[in-house]
Amino acid sequence: MANNPVGPVDATQVPRYAGETTFARLPRLADVSDADIAVWGVPFDGGVSYRPGARFGPNHVRQSSRLLRPYNPAQEVEPFLRAQVADAGDLGVNPFSIDEAIAAVEAGARQLSATSRSLLTIGGDHTIALPLLRVQHERHGPLAVLHFDAHLDTWDTYFGAPYTHGTPFRRAAEEGLIDAEHSVHVGLRGPLYSRLDLDESEQMGFAAVHCRDFVRSPIDDIIERVRARLGNRPVYVSVDIDVLDPAFAPGTGTPEAGGLSSAQLLEVLRGLAGLDVVGADIVEVAPAYDHAEITGIAAAHTAYELLSLLPGRPR
Amino acid sequence: MANNPVGPVDATQVPRYAGETTFARLPRLADVSDADIAVWGVPFDGGVSYRPGARFGPNHVRQSSRLLRPYNPAQEVEPFLRAQVADAGDLGVNPFSIDEAIAAVEAGARQLSATSRSLLTIGGDHTIALPLLRVQHERHGPLAVLHFDAHLDTWDTYFGAPYTHGTPFRRAAEEGLIDAEHSVHVGLRGPLYSRLDLDESEQMGFAAVHCRDFVRSPIDDIIERVRARLGNRPVYVSVDIDVLDPAFAPGTGTPEAGGLSSAQLLEVLRGLAGLDVVGADIVEVAPAYDHAEITGIAAAHTAYELLSLLPGRPR
Amino acid sequence: MANNPVGPVDATQVPRYAGETTFARLPRLADVSDADIAVWGVPFDGGVSYRPGARFGPNHVRQSSRLLRPYNPAQEVEPFLRAQVADAGDLGVNPFSIDEAIAAVEAGARQLSATSRSLLTIGGDHTIALPLLRVQHERHGPLAVLHFDAHLDTWDTYFGAPYTHGTPFRRAAEEGLIDAEHSVHVGLRGPLYSRLDLDESEQMGFAAVHCRDFVRSPIDDIIERVRARLGNRPVYVSVDIDVLDPAFAPGTGTPEAGGLSSAQLLEVLRGLAGLDVVGADIVEVAPAYDHAEITGIAAAHTAYELLSLLPGRPR
Amino acid sequence: MANNPVGPVDATQVPRYAGETTFARLPRLADVSDADIAVWGVPFDGGVSYRPGARFGPNHVRQSSRLLRPYNPAQEVEPFLRAQVADAGDLGVNPFSIDEAIAAVEAGARQLSATSRSLLTIGGDHTIALPLLRVQHERHGPLAVLHFDAHLDTWDTYFGAPYTHGTPFRRAAEEGLIDAEHSVHVGLRGPLYSRLDLDESEQMGFAAVHCRDFVRSPIDDIIERVRARLGNRPVYVSVDIDVLDPAFAPGTGTPEAGGLSSAQLLEVLRGLAGLDVVGADIVEVAPAYDHAEITGIAAAHTAYELLSLLPGRPR
Amino acid sequence: MANNPVGPVDATQVPRYAGETTFARLPRLADVSDADIAVWGVPFDGGVSYRPGARFGPNHVRQSSRLLRPYNPAQEVEPFLRAQVADAGDLGVNPFSIDEAIAAVEAGARQLSATSRSLLTIGGDHTIALPLLRVQHERHGPLAVLHFDAHLDTWDTYFGAPYTHGTPFRRAAEEGLIDAEHSVHVGLRGPLYSRLDLDESEQMGFAAVHCRDFVRSPIDDIIERVRARLGNRPVYVSVDIDVLDPAFAPGTGTPEAGGLSSAQLLEVLRGLAGLDVVGADIVEVAPAYDHAEITGIAAAHTAYELLSLLPGRPR
Amino acid sequence: MANNPVGPVDATQVPRYAGETTFARLPRLADVSDADIAVWGVPFDGGVSYRPGARFGPNHVRQSSRLLRPYNPAQEVEPFLRAQVADAGDLGVNPFSIDEAIAAVEAGARQLSATSRSLLTIGGDHTIALPLLRVQHERHGPLAVLHFDAHLDTWDTYFGAPYTHGTPFRRAAEEGLIDAEHSVHVGLRGPLYSRLDLDESEQMGFAAVHCRDFVRSPIDDIIERVRARLGNRPVYVSVDIDVLDPAFAPGTGTPEAGGLSSAQLLEVLRGLAGLDVVGADIVEVAPAYDHAEITGIAAAHTAYELLSLLPGRPR
Repeated sequence: MANNPVGPVDATQVPRYAGETTFARLPRLADVSDADIAVWGVPFDGGVSYRPGARFGPNHVRQSSRLLRPYNPAQEVEPFLRAQVADAGDLGVNPFSIDEAIAAVEAGARQLSATSRSLLTIGGDHTIALPLLRVQHERHGPLAVLHFDAHLDTWDTYFGAPYTHGTPFRRAAEEGLIDAEHSVHVGLRGPLYSRLDLDESEQMGFAAVHCRDFVRSPIDDIIERVRARLGNRPVYVSVDIDVLDPAFAPGTGTPEAGGLSSAQLLEVLRGLAGLDVVGADIVEVAPAYDHAEITGIAAAHTAYELLSLLPGRPR
Repeated sequence: MANNPVGPVDATQVPRYAGETTFARLPRLADVSDADIAVWGVPFDGGVSYRPGARFGPNHVRQSSRLLRPYNPAQEVEPFLRAQVADAGDLGVNPFSIDEAIAAVEAGARQLSATSRSLLTIGGDHTIALPLLRVQHERHGPLAVLHFDAHLDTWDTYFGAPYTHGTPFRRAAEEGLIDAEHSVHVGLRGPLYSRLDLDESEQMGFAAVHCRDFVRSPIDDIIERVRARLGNRPVYVSVDIDVLDPAFAPGTGTPEAGGLSSAQLLEVLRGLAGLDVVGADIVEVAPAYDHAEITGIAAAHTAYELLSLLPGRPR
Repeated sequence: MANNPVGPVDATQVPRYAGETTFARLPRLADVSDADIAVWGVPFDGGVSYRPGARFGPNHVRQSSRLLRPYNPAQEVEPFLRAQVADAGDLGVNPFSIDEAIAAVEAGARQLSATSRSLLTIGGDHTIALPLLRVQHERHGPLAVLHFDAHLDTWDTYFGAPYTHGTPFRRAAEEGLIDAEHSVHVGLRGPLYSRLDLDESEQMGFAAVHCRDFVRSPIDDIIERVRARLGNRPVYVSVDIDVLDPAFAPGTGTPEAGGLSSAQLLEVLRGLAGLDVVGADIVEVAPAYDHAEITGIAAAHTAYELLSLLPGRPR
Repeated sequence: MANNPVGPVDATQVPRYAGETTFARLPRLADVSDADIAVWGVPFDGGVSYRPGARFGPNHVRQSSRLLRPYNPAQEVEPFLRAQVADAGDLGVNPFSIDEAIAAVEAGARQLSATSRSLLTIGGDHTIALPLLRVQHERHGPLAVLHFDAHLDTWDTYFGAPYTHGTPFRRAAEEGLIDAEHSVHVGLRGPLYSRLDLDESEQMGFAAVHCRDFVRSPIDDIIERVRARLGNRPVYVSVDIDVLDPAFAPGTGTPEAGGLSSAQLLEVLRGLAGLDVVGADIVEVAPAYDHAEITGIAAAHTAYELLSLLPGRPR
Repeated sequence: MANNPVGPVDATQVPRYAGETTFARLPRLADVSDADIAVWGVPFDGGVSYRPGARFGPNHVRQSSRLLRPYNPAQEVEPFLRAQVADAGDLGVNPFSIDEAIAAVEAGARQLSATSRSLLTIGGDHTIALPLLRVQHERHGPLAVLHFDAHLDTWDTYFGAPYTHGTPFRRAAEEGLIDAEHSVHVGLRGPLYSRLDLDESEQMGFAAVHCRDFVRSPIDDIIERVRARLGNRPVYVSVDIDVLDPAFAPGTGTPEAGGLSSAQLLEVLRGLAGLDVVGADIVEVAPAYDHAEITGIAAAHTAYELLSLLPGRPR
Repeated sequence: MANNPVGPVDATQVPRYAGETTFARLPRLADVSDADIAVWGVPFDGGVSYRPGARFGPNHVRQSSRLLRPYNPAQEVEPFLRAQVADAGDLGVNPFSIDEAIAAVEAGARQLSATSRSLLTIGGDHTIALPLLRVQHERHGPLAVLHFDAHLDTWDTYFGAPYTHGTPFRRAAEEGLIDAEHSVHVGLRGPLYSRLDLDESEQMGFAAVHCRDFVRSPIDDIIERVRARLGNRPVYVSVDIDVLDPAFAPGTGTPEAGGLSSAQLLEVLRGLAGLDVVGADIVEVAPAYDHAEITGIAAAHTAYELLSLLPGRPR
């Protein structure tokens, strides 16, 4: 690998609205020899129970990432300089079969991991978190999962299907991929099927920070709770964009009122600096319901903070 | 009445995007013998002074309520299990005559109240609060009104019309329907015609919590102020969706910047548990200005919290 | 069955924007003893290859049908008086499995056909035409299919899936459900995979009227071609709304420029009077891409003309 | 009056997106001594039976008229040079009372007619055509009405109201304002309440050109039919923008599929040159349902052709 | 000048949706002899680096200001009574030349200042702040600038252009127009080109309040920091609407997630009472990306608070 | 160059919504050795006089081209097989200087022409046609220009600027780039500044087909007029997307009612087969005003027909 990572297209030569639609205008993975961090898209939404459309998510987030610049003042890092970040494109996934899709994501992530130290995945619906966790688990063992979401996603089957966007964390827990005692849902809100939903999640070992907690607690207390929970374990961060209020993320599949602001989400992410974040995903961006890229921009900034947390190039 | 209320359509048999568009996929009132709580629509917007369209509000809120599930973790109740909640459909109201409309709403509410213990009304514009308060007053005497709104709605006539969406609480006070000393406006903001607007409201006896207060006060202080004000009176809750900021409720008729977030509104509602809430309405949802059901979803969740506050089935 | 069909809700009592969202404000099937024509929804879009969202189609078309009145001056019939038309609601279909969905649609259509003489189905994506044709075939033998679509939908597998929205008419032909020599595609346009696409369709026996033909031929010539083709066979009409230009139907999954106007589509349908139309569907309405119900209204009017063609009550 | 009419703001000094929002950037009536033609707005939509919002129509059409330039090549006239055209602003109309609104429009039109030779009115809903016809009748006697509309607007009462947007031409005929034998509806389509709707219109004396006729007849035949019908009578042109297909005019209150294109509407208008057009209106533009000013631009161009038909300055 | 300022059009005579589109329905400057405060538009967006369209900003903000009423309860002033406020219309600016545009804005502001004591400018993009500051400097000497923005706008050249929407405050500092030691950026957030961006701004003398500070600090602490910074200097307030989160201001050119709410922005403005505010602008409203006037209304309320801060009529 | 052109990404491996956003999913120019036809973007809109935003046009048309398949049944050619077509990306153009932009486009086109036999350019605004014509003229001598547009674009200066989106064909004629006697405007409509506009165009030598002609003439007559005009000269086709009616192309900068349908535009293009088409552009797609890619899809299909006309690989 070259000593100096190849950064985004120079905006003083090519205006930001011009040029290829890669994430943050970064080089394609094929155009660099290898990458410390690969950003890739998994355009699959066959596991969605309400509004579909997250299959268009990866390119929407890329398009919405054109304004991202190289220096992150909040984390005081230059994510594209401290690591070679590259856009690995989209995985071609069967839109008609959840099982094939899961297998393809698992194989794709495994293959991509062979050349890229860490992966930031843009979905796609939350179904894809399961195969992503499998591959992360192969590398890192049981993961401390930081799960931003309005929903628990620890439900069981739906219409007989064990693998949908409502089940990845139950399945992952069952498969032993997660160190649930160091995992936490953040941003829960909205009606549930039953009190059992919360009980079962708790029994699996997950902690929970509800949106209501953000109304009352100083953000630093919440960050502290999250950090304490994750500990010094390898952390996987999974962001369902519906953790944001519909005002901040209309473009999603199962919106619930009363959510976080993008300022709150970003601030919690920034508070993770120093933890051992090994991989991340952002899912459930459904562009057909977005307006003026509100959702896409929130997702792009979320991705940018995550990139700033993932490991840099080893020295 | 049967011992077990009939709940929403089973989402494991009929996906949430499918099936009839009743509120929360609950049974129609005609399909259950009677109801503890009737949710009904009053699609009238003839009293609107700016953007019309709230006539389409009831069905928009119903459509936006499809994701509501049976367990309310914030209030720790199962609103559809503790009471028979049913959708009583829409009232057919003359769109051309405010007077006839008010008479029809009054008659309709009285008739519906004969078989349903309490009513949750979806407007429609705020004009309809007056006849609703009349019927509530018949049952409960003077009401402590909890009025969420950007506006006072205690104005007098407009274009010579005494009954419009800007006047219901003045008229109600004049008619003795309200126990103003136990009533409060929450969410006031934006320019007024004059200092007199506030003075007159105060002279009628109303207290006020301004949006500005939410910027500075802990939410629990505000809840405490509201609870103290309402006391142990029979409480009627009237929610003009424009109490939310236009970011959270673009689909409304007289939007004002600087409003509440949906998280704030929902949290105050949850804080009312234990009060004697006897009826409620949600008004001024104008779908033509909504996007991706942002406003509709906020209204549906508001309705859900209100349903959780209304009296359950007597044991 | 009563002598006088129950018609739509009286618009002089309940304004058209009010009341339940059934097709054309007709009674629910459950509220009439049986029906000559059942309008039902099949909210399934798991077979879509590009923009999903047709699962929201049935209720969108219903909402867009509120302005339909009882007399059809173009066909000079009163479709709701000459037959009991009722809304049979939506079928609950597994969103995750094409195979289960097809089986469910087939079973559902068979069951509904037991009490309703003919069915008008609102999709959902075009995958559902296959099971619908199976049931029609059981009753009527090989069907003359009048297929309005920008696309042939006679493709073979896609991602290994034999049953998708691109394949129903190939599968139907293979299963012997169609009398292809009396069948015709109307409205074809846009790029194809290969010249073979057309050849194969022709080899299956289908005729074709291209959108280009509408630019040059008088509409009555086209109607005559279609009528001559269908002959006196039992006719099944399948309308993919993407037969319309995106200007007239933005809310669909695989839009192609250069399509029909809604005036052209409706006029061809009106020209079918006197043929033995035994069933029909309207598919591929994807509301997330619609605006101001342009697409929904076009679909609702299409449905209305089809209802006017389906058999009336036997005398 | 000065010899040279004051024209629009000079676009070489003030770009078209800048400056006051008068129709076609013409001077305000108050800024010229008097006018040959006054363009004014009547923002009233209290007579609407479905989607309201035409109260915002006048300013939307003005905003959409910014690109209108001074020379009309289709009619080969310079409408702002051959006559002083001025924007007379909006009438302040009671939004809550149809009766008061009608009286106000009548008084306003009478007053404006005192200083302006002819009026082009931008609605507002079609209710306002009645008082406009009254004032025109005072000046010109019974009028040959050229009525572009999807609907007959010759219905009787609705919810007991005799004056709504569905009744102006029945009321006008009853009041003797119209020379129905020289009047014609153009653009009719869509379902009716009953065959009687057409019969009654015919009995009142109106002729009709249906949208279906445009599919089959050369446009010049239609123009000839219209001209022959209107004859040499004083002609009033009333354009309900819903005469256009929803693709060309989504921003309206009672849209019906299968309508005219804007090219067809404009071409018929251009074909009226030489007739004695004495006044005109454009109604039912409901901006909340418009997109990218599609409807507003169609209305603005319609207005422009009408201005080119109204009498020029006497020499 | 008359003793009593002419206020907005009387809303009891002309409904708020009707009548001319001046700011807050105030009189045009031409219709009053002179003004204490002139609100004017500078529709120029030739200096934009990403989404253009702010040229349509002034009229959009005017249209969105129709609900503004005369009494400001938050500041307890009547801004239209304590001063003659008038709408001075738009400046005609060359859309093709930044240099000519800057010269025109400077000349226009100078001319307008001759008759109006203070100016509130609606942009247009941020490029225009430079000539506005030049004219303010002529009158008041070096200005304490309160700059609300997601961005520093102290960058140097872009594509060789020294004057763009990213550079006004660097140029102004270089020209000595600003008393940077009493100036402050408020609302900064999002990625930067480099750490140098912040360093250079600091070296120029600017202080900064980041959006992150709003997550942690009580609003009154922030207000106090801002007031302390501005001191008793003549203050110029420049509000780039992108200081708001995209949820609150989607209609802008370079949106960044994690921004202020409109409640926060308005509250800081209200906290400036008593300072010597001498002029203000609101820029970067790009209506093509707005929805339901969310952004326009936020800008209009911002303007209203600024008007309440600008000097009243001298007594 | 290899014998077999590299075609689009295989849609049976990567669904059409996935993968890089190149035109028609074709390879990037950098990924093939050279190309017969280069499709490239020129994202410049600094010459726009009304709605800006065409700078986002190239990527919007690319995104809207994902459904284009390899066989063109209307022209019976396989455009990606008969020639190597590749996406050459976007030119980086100074957004602030028309002069620099024109020079850059000229240089860029010249350079690209060195390796690609013909260019299909996606704008950007119509200003760019001038430098494109210059380069075409260098290769082919005076060009027969087929100019689809609502507007003449033969105006002179605007705000003193000689080079804007309203002037390219006047400047080109003055520079001798055009063989005007074999050139023709198609689709003209809407108001002009003066009768002189038409006269001057005629004096330059241009013929004209107005939109009105499409209402009356059979399409084949129009095609014949166009073919006769172009003769056997090298033809350059320039398509301003506003030649389409706003219903078919809302996403553009200077929309005019009464335009062509996309079926009409595409049919005229198909009628050009056999002519010596040497280059082409599609301009004025402004995505911020588009909806559901209506405009983008029309532009993509237009591009596809043009690609089918441009010279294939020499044998």
